[in-house]
Amino acid sequence: MKLTILGCYSATPRIIAQTTAQVLETRGHHFLIDCGEGTQIELRRHKLKFNQIKHIFISHLHGDHYFGLIGLISTFRLLKREADLYIYGPKGIKDIITLQLKLSKSWTDFNLFFHELESTDSECIFEDDKVSVYTIPLIHRIYTNGFLFVEKAFDRKLNVEKAEEKNIDKAYFRKLKQGSDILNRDGIFIKNAEVTSIGVKPKSYAFCSDTAYSEAIVPIIKSVDALYHESTFLESQESLCIHTKHSTAKQAATIAKKAEVGTLILGHYSSRYKDLRLFKSEAETVFRPVELATDGKVFAI
Amino acid sequence: MKLTILGCYSATPRIIAQTTAQVLETRGHHFLIDCGEGTQIELRRHKLKFNQIKHIFISHLHGDHYFGLIGLISTFRLLKREADLYIYGPKGIKDIITLQLKLSKSWTDFNLFFHELESTDSECIFEDDKVSVYTIPLIHRIYTNGFLFVEKAFDRKLNVEKAEEKNIDKAYFRKLKQGSDILNRDGIFIKNAEVTSIGVKPKSYAFCSDTAYSEAIVPIIKSVDALYHESTFLESQESLCIHTKHSTAKQAATIAKKAEVGTLILGHYSSRYKDLRLFKSEAETVFRPVELATDGKVFAI
Repeated sequence: MKLTILGCYSATPRIIAQTTAQVLETRGHHFLIDCGEGTQIELRRHKLKFNQIKHIFISHLHGDHYFGLIGLISTFRLLKREADLYIYGPKGIKDIITLQLKLSKSWTDFNLFFHELESTDSECIFEDDKVSVYTIPLIHRIYTNGFLFVEKAFDRKLNVEKAEEKNIDKAYFRKLKQGSDILNRDGIFIKNAEVTSIGVKPKSYAFCSDTAYSEAIVPIIKSVDALYHESTFLESQESLCIHTKHSTAKQAATIAKKAEVGTLILGHYSSRYKDLRLFKSEAETVFRPVELATDGKVFAI
Repeated sequence: MKLTILGCYSATPRIIAQTTAQVLETRGHHFLIDCGEGTQIELRRHKLKFNQIKHIFISHLHGDHYFGLIGLISTFRLLKREADLYIYGPKGIKDIITLQLKLSKSWTDFNLFFHELESTDSECIFEDDKVSVYTIPLIHRIYTNGFLFVEKAFDRKLNVEKAEEKNIDKAYFRKLKQGSDILNRDGIFIKNAEVTSIGVKPKSYAFCSDTAYSEAIVPIIKSVDALYHESTFLESQESLCIHTKHSTAKQAATIAKKAEVGTLILGHYSSRYKDLRLFKSEAETVFRPVELATDGKVFAI
């Protein structure tokens, strides 16, 4: 998995601080997660190809997480996109987009599918033979979901030399990679483990923004390889979390610890903080390793 | 008048090319004209204060002219704006904005007044004792208006030395500046022109984007000091104007010539052209002077 942070600041876009958007590349997919104002420019800046984006996941309808969506869709249209586009987001997102397309008389020539979310239980919203995507119900001022991306098992790794030694016909290689036992050219039974080893370990990534501290998400994100959890404030401003329903860096780290995740990535910083290292050091008092999201940063998961 | 170009490119925002937005400063007003995606960032970049903007004029509902509006309004809210905000634009703009405010549960604490436009005749949409603003009906793929900003007469310039010589009481100075004749301390009739001269010449500015070539606008914009007229294409691509309802640089210059304007400012360039000087030289075959808008450029009118 490769995660590119296009924007990771809260509230309003500024000259050197973009609002939330990120692209997760996994098993041939380029999933766009949230789409703050100016996301299309950040996609260009980081040379991410527009046409590779087929699925867009919107956490909630606060502007810093979706105001760039209508512009991105319009640009897709102007660039004569043909590929289908799937948008997953809270109920109402379809009305917002279609009202603007209607009033500008700018219907898209590509298919635009809306998958509106209303459930407060975690549900599978996308699945193919390589990846599944689940919602993570979050606690915020309005209806909000995080998203969990889980890779399916990779093929087993075939030792071709050994397979040839064992006189196995090439036609069986695919089946071996998929884990089957087979018969060789001499009719001898070959156990799969004799010629294969475990493949690449499938990875998982959880995006949780925006949210108040919520232990209810722990079982959903248990043991993910990487967790992006918002940390709008530091512990010294914890009181601001109550009204705004955001989290501190320490709270994010507590969730990471309880869920036993691989790596915690912090983001969604309030503009009041000039030194992001304070978020890292605060979180590290509870959990390690901690990474700081910054605009343009790329994480290999 | 001072005109700051925040963005002057057509279609889609790119890393170094912003879509349409400009600020006209005149007689204490800071009028925002159009508001493409990212306008709030360009306002910050050019150090234009958010709170000075009280009136926003939207020409039409193509995204490159208004996708930044909801973000700007949201930022005003986050910055705890108190001043009223007036938005002038095509019917539908109120629905677009209020739907998004409603779904995000983010109603503004300041008053938001919508003045929705439907008329295809030029009309006065704003007036105070210093400035009037009129619509300029344009021809485009959807309902579109340009805007004409006309300063009202400035006070006459009082020659204080002469007035004292003529034994005029200071209490009459205001009346003299406003053009009245008066009686001096000796009861002698003083004609206004004896102690005043003509004041600063009031200025006018017309913004015309987007539009096909339309001579119908000539009487409305007659003799304006500066005309911003779109020139999406060069004459060599004139055929593209027919379907898209845009203008060439030459057509813009022809309108400027017929309307006998002071200066023609070109903008709304298609991204297909790398050398903007071609627009200037093409327009200059018909009319002079011609200026090229570029992002961040400031014009004194």
